[in-house]
Amino acid sequence: MKVTVEELLAKAAKPAKIAPILHKHYGGKLQVMPKCAIRGISDFDVWYTPGVAEPCRVIQRDKDASFEYTNRWNFAAVVSDGSRVLGLGNIGPEAGMPVMEGKALLFKYLGGVDAFPLVVRAHEPEEMLKLLKWIEPSFGAINLEDIEKPKCFRILEEARKELEIPVWHDDQQGTATVVLAGVINALKLVGKRIEDVEIALVGAGAANIKVADVLELAGVRPGKMYLVDSKGILSPDRRDILEVEKDPWKYKWAAKSNAEGRRGGIPEAMKGVDVLIAASRPGPGVIRQEWFRLMADDSIAFLCANPIPEAWPWEAKEAGVKIVGTGRSDFPNQINNSLGFPAIFRGVLDVRARTVTDEMCVAAAVELARFAEERGITEDNILPKMTEWEVYPREAVACAMKSIEQGVARLKPSRQELMERATSIIKGAMRSLEALMKSGVIPPFPEGVET
Amino acid sequence: MKVTVEELLAKAAKPAKIAPILHKHYGGKLQVMPKCAIRGISDFDVWYTPGVAEPCRVIQRDKDASFEYTNRWNFAAVVSDGSRVLGLGNIGPEAGMPVMEGKALLFKYLGGVDAFPLVVRAHEPEEMLKLLKWIEPSFGAINLEDIEKPKCFRILEEARKELEIPVWHDDQQGTATVVLAGVINALKLVGKRIEDVEIALVGAGAANIKVADVLELAGVRPGKMYLVDSKGILSPDRRDILEVEKDPWKYKWAAKSNAEGRRGGIPEAMKGVDVLIAASRPGPGVIRQEWFRLMADDSIAFLCANPIPEAWPWEAKEAGVKIVGTGRSDFPNQINNSLGFPAIFRGVLDVRARTVTDEMCVAAAVELARFAEERGITEDNILPKMTEWEVYPREAVACAMKSIEQGVARLKPSRQELMERATSIIKGAMRSLEALMKSGVIPPFPEGVET
Repeated sequence: MKVTVEELLAKAAKPAKIAPILHKHYGGKLQVMPKCAIRGISDFDVWYTPGVAEPCRVIQRDKDASFEYTNRWNFAAVVSDGSRVLGLGNIGPEAGMPVMEGKALLFKYLGGVDAFPLVVRAHEPEEMLKLLKWIEPSFGAINLEDIEKPKCFRILEEARKELEIPVWHDDQQGTATVVLAGVINALKLVGKRIEDVEIALVGAGAANIKVADVLELAGVRPGKMYLVDSKGILSPDRRDILEVEKDPWKYKWAAKSNAEGRRGGIPEAMKGVDVLIAASRPGPGVIRQEWFRLMADDSIAFLCANPIPEAWPWEAKEAGVKIVGTGRSDFPNQINNSLGFPAIFRGVLDVRARTVTDEMCVAAAVELARFAEERGITEDNILPKMTEWEVYPREAVACAMKSIEQGVARLKPSRQELMERATSIIKGAMRSLEALMKSGVIPPFPEGVET
Repeated sequence: MKVTVEELLAKAAKPAKIAPILHKHYGGKLQVMPKCAIRGISDFDVWYTPGVAEPCRVIQRDKDASFEYTNRWNFAAVVSDGSRVLGLGNIGPEAGMPVMEGKALLFKYLGGVDAFPLVVRAHEPEEMLKLLKWIEPSFGAINLEDIEKPKCFRILEEARKELEIPVWHDDQQGTATVVLAGVINALKLVGKRIEDVEIALVGAGAANIKVADVLELAGVRPGKMYLVDSKGILSPDRRDILEVEKDPWKYKWAAKSNAEGRRGGIPEAMKGVDVLIAASRPGPGVIRQEWFRLMADDSIAFLCANPIPEAWPWEAKEAGVKIVGTGRSDFPNQINNSLGFPAIFRGVLDVRARTVTDEMCVAAAVELARFAEERGITEDNILPKMTEWEVYPREAVACAMKSIEQGVARLKPSRQELMERATSIIKGAMRSLEALMKSGVIPPFPEGVET
């Protein structure tokens, strides 16, 4: 079914129209609640002074006990400086808050994670790093969100070194995880091996640089990847990259990708490749239809730009692409970050991991792909849907098991224990919301406002 | 009824014994929850992309709209570096977390405030100030907690200047507010005017320095106050204070208190005074019984040290003191900070105040006192009890009205609107907890564990 830009924008216009009404109606989306029984004021003898001094003493003797006697084991920070929010650009911390509250909702609803949004005025990488180190004792994990590049690379890399809790930048690892899951299943359908394929990556920003890292880890030969930025295909002889010391991450990929030394732009990168992953700028027309014809047989294209993909899915299909994915929920094969972060955090939190590695992203992606394969995949249905909630505990466990295997987990429960725990926590989050809605404390949508 | 230190400690031993069990049972005390209806995945079209972009744009145009379209209007941070937690000293941020979670519980339960605990590794005053400025866009107010002196003074003073949201240090303003409320009602009972009384303040730490500020604002003549630190009565000729440039707050009081130039220690300060406020170190025996006999007729003594007051209440009574208060719930007249902070935050948040002033503390204290007076006060019952929840909305409104009067409120609702709003929010918080407990999502205490 073909649609026009106008139709798609009109479709997005409805949520855009009612979102301000609903955000104002509820006065925001997130609240802080007790998780322990309080039967009356006298229970504060235990929850506060004098009783509380005792858990304090226990943690004073062993800092890691903070994961047992407080909610630290399930607290995650969603941190953003608002420097690159959705497609809106650098809108600042205050304006970024609705997105961060929304992200925290998803964390809770899909992963049972108590995520708290922190929009901050720490704009320099050094400032952000300081902030993360200062707040570390409160949290079990940190999710960085919507921070512009290249500073997001530096912050992530340093924070992962210096903090003893997982630090994740969803625009990087999150996207990479779900893209990889899609690639794995698409390759199954076309009968190609990941070790053999050539891949063009259009856009060399936060997302695609990490996509390349994770693809390499999953078996793609780095020399068989072609990364394209606004100035053309990356290669070691690209002077402008050598000169830009600020972006060693891009330079690293300029050095190890593109073994055959291709030059040129997007069409040259796409020539003969099996997979295209575009994470560049809103289309259509960023990828021209004729360029898809340059790709190998049984090709795969993920067109991830929002709100409009780099090309229309049907343009790719008509030009011979076999499997097409986009970032949108109204086209087949949505590459949707929500399939990743909530469950992955569930997994790292449940083993109190000290970090989250790219290998865990791969493990999560493999499990996402496996789940979809087990219930059946087709060219138009390669990934789980957000509503298939059974996938989340499985993904969490895959990620947790990898943490244990890599020796970065503080806890080592069995696979079954992990599965039971993740399932129970995620179900508990849903039941809590239901209880609040059913009792009327969370009121229904105002009359006349429908999504 | 007389008790011994041993009996009181034994009494506190029960909460101390079951607190670790219960904290572990629940895995902490606080969670993050949706406050908006989520009827299914498709509602995320509004709560997240694409709809969420629109509230972001509204806030981008007007930062203050973050108080309408996000929960910022009700988010408060409870920030501590763990440098002076309860009577435990500098136990560090991780070990301070149980107290901060408990504080956040009280904020929600008594004031309907969504308080989030942030225990941080920012130990230098400059670091803490940076942190507060960085996180300001996320919050409507900030509660500093358990930070050692003198850095707590500097942090509070600077933060109040530099941030455009209320910053409160509960160990200072919170204690001062409730002490003042007690003094007001005690003076009513003994028929003395606040302008006429002489007051001895034993202990010149975070609490009593602010108590002195607030008492002065409420009408006590500064020259009629005698502050005593570990080296004796403060006066301008105390060399050690002049030399200590780090504590200008204490120096200020050395300069303006003690007009008659008293010298000596606690008994010399207590001689002939109408009121004693001790906030020093656990007793008994810090204030000797014979010293109470030095006080004026119809004297008043608040002995605030925890867990054991500076002297036994009956010692004071036997020595002629008419009205005695302590920090404990098991003696009459508890000087209890929980009567202050939750409602005061409710008040400043409901008018989106830019700051919280000492005048607002006085307004809150006057309302606390008035509430108790209206339902009847006696020598053994001068203050509201924590269970008299009707006092909280009234106190919130008093504080909010003072914000409006002082020109620091962003909103200016009527007294009635404020009362309805505060009442509804506080009741809503209680109903939410009930809904979660009733549905079983928050399980009961484990069997065999009783408070």
